[in-house]
Amino acid sequence: MKLMCGKETLLNFINIVNKAVSSRTTLPILECILLTADQRGFTMTANNLELGIQTAPIDADVLEKGEIAIEAKIFHEIIRRLNGDTVTLETDEKNSITITGGTSRFTIMGQSGDDFPALPDVVQEEAYTLGQNELRNLIRQTIFSISQESTKQILTGELFEMKENALQVVSIDGYRISFRKSPLEHDFTEKSVVVPGKTLTELTKILSQEDEDKVHLYFTDKHVLFDLGMATMVSRLLEGEYVSYENNFTEDFKTKIIIDTNELIQALERASLVSRDNRKTPVRLELKPNVLVITARSDMGTAYEEVPNETDGDEMQIAFNPRYLIEALRAIDDEKVAIRFTGSLSPCTIVPLEGKAYQYLILPLRM
Amino acid sequence: MKLMCGKETLLNFINIVNKAVSSRTTLPILECILLTADQRGFTMTANNLELGIQTAPIDADVLEKGEIAIEAKIFHEIIRRLNGDTVTLETDEKNSITITGGTSRFTIMGQSGDDFPALPDVVQEEAYTLGQNELRNLIRQTIFSISQESTKQILTGELFEMKENALQVVSIDGYRISFRKSPLEHDFTEKSVVVPGKTLTELTKILSQEDEDKVHLYFTDKHVLFDLGMATMVSRLLEGEYVSYENNFTEDFKTKIIIDTNELIQALERASLVSRDNRKTPVRLELKPNVLVITARSDMGTAYEEVPNETDGDEMQIAFNPRYLIEALRAIDDEKVAIRFTGSLSPCTIVPLEGKAYQYLILPLRM
Repeated sequence: MKLMCGKETLLNFINIVNKAVSSRTTLPILECILLTADQRGFTMTANNLELGIQTAPIDADVLEKGEIAIEAKIFHEIIRRLNGDTVTLETDEKNSITITGGTSRFTIMGQSGDDFPALPDVVQEEAYTLGQNELRNLIRQTIFSISQESTKQILTGELFEMKENALQVVSIDGYRISFRKSPLEHDFTEKSVVVPGKTLTELTKILSQEDEDKVHLYFTDKHVLFDLGMATMVSRLLEGEYVSYENNFTEDFKTKIIIDTNELIQALERASLVSRDNRKTPVRLELKPNVLVITARSDMGTAYEEVPNETDGDEMQIAFNPRYLIEALRAIDDEKVAIRFTGSLSPCTIVPLEGKAYQYLILPLRM
Repeated sequence: MKLMCGKETLLNFINIVNKAVSSRTTLPILECILLTADQRGFTMTANNLELGIQTAPIDADVLEKGEIAIEAKIFHEIIRRLNGDTVTLETDEKNSITITGGTSRFTIMGQSGDDFPALPDVVQEEAYTLGQNELRNLIRQTIFSISQESTKQILTGELFEMKENALQVVSIDGYRISFRKSPLEHDFTEKSVVVPGKTLTELTKILSQEDEDKVHLYFTDKHVLFDLGMATMVSRLLEGEYVSYENNFTEDFKTKIIIDTNELIQALERASLVSRDNRKTPVRLELKPNVLVITARSDMGTAYEEVPNETDGDEMQIAFNPRYLIEALRAIDDEKVAIRFTGSLSPCTIVPLEGKAYQYLILPLRM
């Protein structure tokens, strides 16, 4: 292989495939990026066996075809620090690669491309399409409540439900449910799959922040492929039945408040300060006419907060893990939200003032 | 104690005294800030027994005198997150303090001020004075080569030599010597002390970046006091004789190069990339006519760099730990430096093109 490529171009694509490089593994080849120059042009691939990323052909002058796997970390560092605008990559028959640029020349031992694991094959037939930034937000606004416990394997992923012209994304960790939905472009077959949380975390890092950039989702029984245009990401799906969640949501309430999202976050964060054990001390909410009183108490001391709001319904007292409320509220970009309460021992639900784009359900703590 | 104080003012002073708060200690009182309202006004003090900081009187309305020690972390977090402009602090006879501001009220358990350790008494007689930014730079540009080994206790600090109308700051770790000097204002008695590295690290965080702001240094046999105007820092000194270093510096050379500081740093950093073990792989320098060739080799591969320069003297080959060269060069703000070499097994010395404001001496490695 021999080719020349712009340094910044190369660096951008390395940053993309890097998201699928293993950091700690017993298989050194998984810490590599596969460089390929063939009839398609110059591409790069990374694959940690859970998820893989392959770039689209990269703008480069390919002088000689070939393939090599090079350790991602050193390759990234060298390209990042080169002082020239153009990089020349050249391999020899002993699987070493010479990287030349500016005033530098590196020769690095690589591995044969033949040893690099192939990505799963996903035929790109029926596409589910939405804006990249839209998908990025859907994930960001739900990913925090996936289960961290590997005993509930299926809950370590997010439910992707494609139905009623929309993509619904759901995460549940046993204490709360996060639900978001967003319209999909054109007609499609209904589908329901569970995507691993790790995949989604890495995906958000490479999704564009522009909704004009589209992402197309393709599925097989076992895999999902995200086509971002400049790269595709392939991930296995989680197997098994996801938890049924719809019946937990209700439109009923005994008390509903409309409250400033940011003021409530700030007050909850302050009240959490008297907790020594990483916010596990409950906060008590007292719903009074047009004012929410938040209190917390620990061996360290007490906190008292007042947040004005529009209250509709009865006075009520209810306690929560403040972190759960804060994380849900932080995922909401609206200035104000509605929170529905049905009783001191029943979950509350955070919803938008209008529409049904999201619902966050949180179980209370016993006082 | 009862007083009212601006939130931002209070926060600024907390950030200063915080530098002397213990983070991990078996004595909980050392994790506290002492708040004092007396005839001097409102002041705050922290003391970790190695070093202590006391603020000047803080702009506040003192309604009632008194004293309390409050855990620094919770106090800092509460003040930082309050949403009002003014904070009211009020203690009761049970050593609890009520903090009120904006829509919040906290009551936090404190400790009696009587239990707080007093700062060492340093009579402020003869002052050694220089710009705060000047001292900040002197420390930043030498602190990296203090010894990390507690077996050489005296070398874990920096030598402060006040003589010949200047402050000379020296650090030595056995492999290199960093030397900086800066003029002092007005006449003074010659003096030579060793200040602990930890003290200097914390001091740089609160020294102003303006040279119009002065710092006055006062000494006793065992302590140094830095008067920054808005606060004073007191630290113990390290006891014992510092290493004699002057004879290591020489003006002689077999080869001298004048080289772009930043280009050399970049080339050394790139060459270090082929080292797996955190830059401990030596780099080899080949001094050729007007070009410095830098090479490195490890099981990972090889690096080759060329850096143009003005060479005066013989061709030479010499090897270094690249980190030592990089750290010294990074401490130099000049665009170009001179480097003097006397032989492959002798230290090199990095000096300014003109004057004697700094000297960095680095031992070579055997090739």
